Amino acid sequence: MNFISGGVCAAKGFSANGIHCGIRKNRTKRDLSLIMSDVPATAAAVYTTNLVKGAPLVVTKKHLENNTAQAIICNSGNANTCNANGIEIAEKMCDALSKKIGINPNDIVVASTGVIGQPLDIAPIANGIPSLVDGLSKDGGEFAAEGIMTTDTIKKEVAVEFQIGGKICRMGGIAKGSGMIHPNMATMLVFITTDVNISGEMLQKALSTDITNTFNMLSIDGDTSTNDMVVVLANGLAENEKIVADNDDFKLFMTALNTLTVQLCRMIAGDGEGATKLLECKVSGADSLDTAKTVAKSVVCSSLLKAAMFGADANWGRVLCAIGYSGAKVDVNKVGVCFKSAKGTIEVCRNGAGVDFSEETAKEILLEKEIEILVTLDSGEYSSAAWGCDLTYDYVKINGDYRT
Amino acid sequence: MNFISGGVCAAKGFSANGIHCGIRKNRTKRDLSLIMSDVPATAAAVYTTNLVKGAPLVVTKKHLENNTAQAIICNSGNANTCNANGIEIAEKMCDALSKKIGINPNDIVVASTGVIGQPLDIAPIANGIPSLVDGLSKDGGEFAAEGIMTTDTIKKEVAVEFQIGGKICRMGGIAKGSGMIHPNMATMLVFITTDVNISGEMLQKALSTDITNTFNMLSIDGDTSTNDMVVVLANGLAENEKIVADNDDFKLFMTALNTLTVQLCRMIAGDGEGATKLLECKVSGADSLDTAKTVAKSVVCSSLLKAAMFGADANWGRVLCAIGYSGAKVDVNKVGVCFKSAKGTIEVCRNGAGVDFSEETAKEILLEKEIEILVTLDSGEYSSAAWGCDLTYDYVKINGDYRT
Repeated sequence: MNFISGGVCAAKGFSANGIHCGIRKNRTKRDLSLIMSDVPATAAAVYTTNLVKGAPLVVTKKHLENNTAQAIICNSGNANTCNANGIEIAEKMCDALSKKIGINPNDIVVASTGVIGQPLDIAPIANGIPSLVDGLSKDGGEFAAEGIMTTDTIKKEVAVEFQIGGKICRMGGIAKGSGMIHPNMATMLVFITTDVNISGEMLQKALSTDITNTFNMLSIDGDTSTNDMVVVLANGLAENEKIVADNDDFKLFMTALNTLTVQLCRMIAGDGEGATKLLECKVSGADSLDTAKTVAKSVVCSSLLKAAMFGADANWGRVLCAIGYSGAKVDVNKVGVCFKSAKGTIEVCRNGAGVDFSEETAKEILLEKEIEILVTLDSGEYSSAAWGCDLTYDYVKINGDYRT
Repeated sequence: MNFISGGVCAAKGFSANGIHCGIRKNRTKRDLSLIMSDVPATAAAVYTTNLVKGAPLVVTKKHLENNTAQAIICNSGNANTCNANGIEIAEKMCDALSKKIGINPNDIVVASTGVIGQPLDIAPIANGIPSLVDGLSKDGGEFAAEGIMTTDTIKKEVAVEFQIGGKICRMGGIAKGSGMIHPNMATMLVFITTDVNISGEMLQKALSTDITNTFNMLSIDGDTSTNDMVVVLANGLAENEKIVADNDDFKLFMTALNTLTVQLCRMIAGDGEGATKLLECKVSGADSLDTAKTVAKSVVCSSLLKAAMFGADANWGRVLCAIGYSGAKVDVNKVGVCFKSAKGTIEVCRNGAGVDFSEETAKEILLEKEIEILVTLDSGEYSSAAWGCDLTYDYVKINGDYRT
């Protein structure tokens, strides 16, 4: 498994583009993205569990009933959610694209991200589609990644190359993260493309399985978005023998997908709104996978621990506290905690109580950009990881007046 | 029902004090409090559901098995939690007090609040107890309220006067709030005293019922503390006919208790760590009490909405988002939202979609210190309220380096 460049255009037969069409006032910010497969692709998706669902999700879900799609269009700057005419606008986006590229609107995935509850004007999108389509290229993955950004400070794209049955396969993805990130059986906006030949059923199985250990173990701020969606398009151009069952090829595919999604999780968490640090909580020794996951997620969700990490303060009592209220059944007298970074590892808690440690060394470790919180439960063989970020002044600043 | 002064000393037969004994470095900050009844009192308590429980809670729970107590001792500056010798220290606190005042250690409630996981030295407490006891007075409620403060910026005390069966009764309480506040079937530190004559069973019933609508509907930061505890002492000196059943007198008692606890909730929320605003979400028209509560609590817990309120930004989409992921079954197409303060009320959402409103008026309303978020679900007759506060730079500052 090798990381390669190219993002969503890394796989055979995919092109992309992103432009500024005018939804945003800032003319230097791309706000409309397109990802296109040369041929119809097998598609799978997962969606937010928030009862308030963005209109584009409703339309996309309908379009993907046949597990087929050829294009993904997504705007930023407006979520097209909680608007009376939301469905109509999402459908108009598909219709306008359909007319320009000559594919069925039913084969288009539509997504929107940005502020909730402000009507989305179709005019700039409709006017922008011709140049959006004309500019499609194999080098456009980066532009597409930029076009879906909201408060993200870095664009998030990743791609991998691997082999299935002797055929070179590629898979790439882009993500939009930053705020309102606390996926629950679904996730933020992630678009993944691959040239692997795989059935719709197995593609959906791969995605639905993968997210339980990746995007669903990620939290920026505890707010589950209304517009979360992960979509995978697999166009089959790698010409491997079609994956139709849970065999070795499927396992290879799952590994590739997981490599990609873990990387995207880390990128999203590290670039959480206002974040200065990526936090990863690794839980081991749990009596069940559920316990491991519940504990890991509770720790990365704690506002108090997140603020302590911002201050590089080894306040491990807050880790214990978050484990204690997680809802998982844990023997707190067996819990151990270490903090780890590129500067080393320090043990701060053993058997549920503090151990003597050097505050100076702890500070040095916690001043790094990527922090691991290692929790041992000493009660079994299960482990899990969750990703998050620190809580900072800038999170408050960004969200104190997001709309203006 | 009249509000009166005196806090925990308002009721007959109670005295209190608070001193600086030396747990904290700052010599101007009281760190040890005592509340004392002239006679043994009926006692009831509720505790945190966090699996990590402060040692003082374990000791107190044991001491209250007979529903009787005469004194409450509480230190701030150290939570005495996650320490190998925690129980021993909590017992020593009771023993030292017991020797000085000549009551059974079993009749003492012990509590601690502050940083988790640092051994608590008994020396300053043992040395401080003589002057703590000698200084007990009817005017000492304020000192006791100060002695339990951590990052609180204002002391929280309240008292009410009412009649039961022609007898004048009084009830007073103090609270310690600020951070790690997300009570779950229990709460932060609250000590309530009353001279009402009531059985242990009915006192516990009153408390356990009341908290489901008061302290359990309060959140500062989503972190359920390890040291949450509410204790009520009722010494019977008002000489009303003893309340032993769910009769009219009990209802009067419940009303008094609820008046007091709602007031303490508002004080705790308004003085949340770093808070500049008190938020109250009032939900009506719910199909069940559970739905009303779940929705109200989800709204006041949303980091994104809390940050928007700090910025006086009428970003009602975040209210809808928090309702949508709350887990309650709600018809989102029927939801209405208004923002209300001393400056007026403004409707921002109807039937799940935005309505035209003046951003200027909304700003004026949201710049106030106390904001009500009114949510209508239009699906039934149940209603509920929850309290919280805004998320500010100062919350991050306070928690970025709490221990040093």
